[in-house]
Amino acid sequence: MTSPSPHSDSPAPSRFPVVVVGAGPAGLTVGNILRAAGVGCLVLETESRRFVEQRPRAGFIEERVVRGLEQRGLAGGLLERAERHSVCEFRFDGHGHPFDYTELTAGHHWVYPQPLLVSDLVREYADVRGGEIRFGVRDVRLHDLDSDRPAVSYTDPDSGERLLVRCDFVAGCDGARGASRAALPDRARTSRYDLGVAWLALLAEAPPSSDRVLFGMHPSGFAGHMPRTPEVTRYYLQCPPGDHPDDWPHERVWSELQQRLRAADRPPLTEGRLLEKRVLDMHNYVVEPMVFGRLFLAGDAAHLVAPIAAKGMNLALHDAFLLGDGLAARLTGGDPAGLDGYSRTCLRRVWEYQEFSQWLSGIYHGVSSGDPYRAGTTLARLRRLFTSPLAAAAFAEQYLGTAAAY
Amino acid sequence: MTSPSPHSDSPAPSRFPVVVVGAGPAGLTVGNILRAAGVGCLVLETESRRFVEQRPRAGFIEERVVRGLEQRGLAGGLLERAERHSVCEFRFDGHGHPFDYTELTAGHHWVYPQPLLVSDLVREYADVRGGEIRFGVRDVRLHDLDSDRPAVSYTDPDSGERLLVRCDFVAGCDGARGASRAALPDRARTSRYDLGVAWLALLAEAPPSSDRVLFGMHPSGFAGHMPRTPEVTRYYLQCPPGDHPDDWPHERVWSELQQRLRAADRPPLTEGRLLEKRVLDMHNYVVEPMVFGRLFLAGDAAHLVAPIAAKGMNLALHDAFLLGDGLAARLTGGDPAGLDGYSRTCLRRVWEYQEFSQWLSGIYHGVSSGDPYRAGTTLARLRRLFTSPLAAAAFAEQYLGTAAAY
Repeated sequence: MTSPSPHSDSPAPSRFPVVVVGAGPAGLTVGNILRAAGVGCLVLETESRRFVEQRPRAGFIEERVVRGLEQRGLAGGLLERAERHSVCEFRFDGHGHPFDYTELTAGHHWVYPQPLLVSDLVREYADVRGGEIRFGVRDVRLHDLDSDRPAVSYTDPDSGERLLVRCDFVAGCDGARGASRAALPDRARTSRYDLGVAWLALLAEAPPSSDRVLFGMHPSGFAGHMPRTPEVTRYYLQCPPGDHPDDWPHERVWSELQQRLRAADRPPLTEGRLLEKRVLDMHNYVVEPMVFGRLFLAGDAAHLVAPIAAKGMNLALHDAFLLGDGLAARLTGGDPAGLDGYSRTCLRRVWEYQEFSQWLSGIYHGVSSGDPYRAGTTLARLRRLFTSPLAAAAFAEQYLGTAAAY
Repeated sequence: MTSPSPHSDSPAPSRFPVVVVGAGPAGLTVGNILRAAGVGCLVLETESRRFVEQRPRAGFIEERVVRGLEQRGLAGGLLERAERHSVCEFRFDGHGHPFDYTELTAGHHWVYPQPLLVSDLVREYADVRGGEIRFGVRDVRLHDLDSDRPAVSYTDPDSGERLLVRCDFVAGCDGARGASRAALPDRARTSRYDLGVAWLALLAEAPPSSDRVLFGMHPSGFAGHMPRTPEVTRYYLQCPPGDHPDDWPHERVWSELQQRLRAADRPPLTEGRLLEKRVLDMHNYVVEPMVFGRLFLAGDAAHLVAPIAAKGMNLALHDAFLLGDGLAARLTGGDPAGLDGYSRTCLRRVWEYQEFSQWLSGIYHGVSSGDPYRAGTTLARLRRLFTSPLAAAAFAEQYLGTAAAY
């Protein structure tokens, strides 16, 4: 809920047209767009710059998001350093089944780890475009969102002072557990979906065992393989919800990975030391609408999608383009159209990706569900990707995000 | 389970290369194929000829099934009298959304009520091709299926005598509640799926309100409209499992139909007297394998699919083509390949249609599920059919059954 405005003995409030809460990909992109349009803007972030520039996250970026960043002058590092993938591989029934999505769509999956993108965006925003940003702020609160003069307050990490910033608009880009979600009014409707499984996310000090992303659908559960660097590979292992990383010692991890990703026509995985083990809770949600008074949500603050289809950051950046452009149009020329249509336009894509993620989750987790009917329909769904060129193309379009733009 | 052979004081057994249990579309098609190949065959049916020729069932037939019947000389009546549909219409969000599947696939849905097809098949089998058929038999039992000399016994309706027929093969085409399913051994695995809803199937003495099949996705539940004759229209209404037809008096039926199929850009439905009200239990199953010793299952005896996508009779006829051809090849030239691959080949298509039916059930029933997340993904799935040409074409391919032949 919106907090009441702070006491009148606080320091005099500063003022920015826009306060962006959260310095992740969405918030920094909004900030960069605003600065390019000459709009004043303050970004508030509870973590340190070093932390957000190193926070490990996946980095599959859709071609149209790459183009969106490029159009806004934000793709320099990405275009120079990202890898482009064109084939993934499904492993089931004991064989590897390569899926060449670039052949089907002429698009690629760009692989650029989120920490690198965030570093680029921070540098561009703060060091090149002269944007204001405060890291390490504490106890962020949103105020007066239903008025046309909302505010954000926070505790300054150096002075310990409580500061208030008045603005015209608040961009809520601070993720699933941030101040923006905490400020949502009662009329916000959150729809939720629990996938009923967890994933163990692993980082292994081992070279990739294939130059492709691999998806293993096995009666024991899903497993994934994502090449990262020549020395490091990311793996995922489906596990029961509630499992602890300690339930998965080295031997067990590799034995399950080898089994679930085994293919008669492929070499076994190259094993290595496990650098990281985290259990990911697999659930999705959507907040509707994405606008409450002067608060505009973007990214995980508005919708969460389990890392099934690598859509989270892509959705966040789609939001950020629309929000940045809409705020810039409103604040420079007075054109309200972008902001007026913001929630509706975003939500169409959000729901499409939620649907796709759920469908793909069916493929990943159906074979090991213990339900023979579900296993049978899952294998049918999988086989259809390799027998129907239309089904393959329709899947590739969603996987790569080349479907209808909204 | 297989019954022991009857007592030795029964009349001397007669002998046919094939006994077909059940005179529905699958059994009669198998019989016709065998007779055309000169293979002796006896069809046993517990109902009367009049009953099977009038049993009301839907009649959407895939183009490739029409071609399969035509190739086997069984499509005369159908080609002369069937209607061909090329457009259906989804109604949601208060509007009608026509879907032209013929434009996408160059295929049609052929509409030919099952009673007409069964009448054609009985006439051809018994009156033209000289096939043997017994109607009204009682207490059918299957014997010695694991031997190479199986048998079927039954009670003759006229004499009351218990008769035994020895054969080389039994074609189990007697549906969900027949003797074939009752004879399945322990090693048969049945996978089941309950859709969690029921449908009220209605026949109304009212002209169709559109020349198209209509699917209404409404928060109150699914409704369907199927033109039948100029005077009679079939409707479906989703209802809670366990509802009784008496829960649905005339006024309630029409009020719900009008509401669920309402579209701002379409006239209201033309109402009329309700000639038939039945509650359909919506569940699916698949028996694996479809062969046990000398028993070959076809149609509903092997797999049931709720009438979501009008696939039941199509699957039954796909099975029957393969089984008839396989038996004829084996019994005339000794070639076992068709029978050896029968179960595997059928099951690939069966599972594909089960998957499609489940996906389409998601579309029909998601909006009214009471779960806002499910409603959101359902609308996304629906909208994608009207925004992505690839998704539309992939759907049309499954709806019409023009996807990869196996």
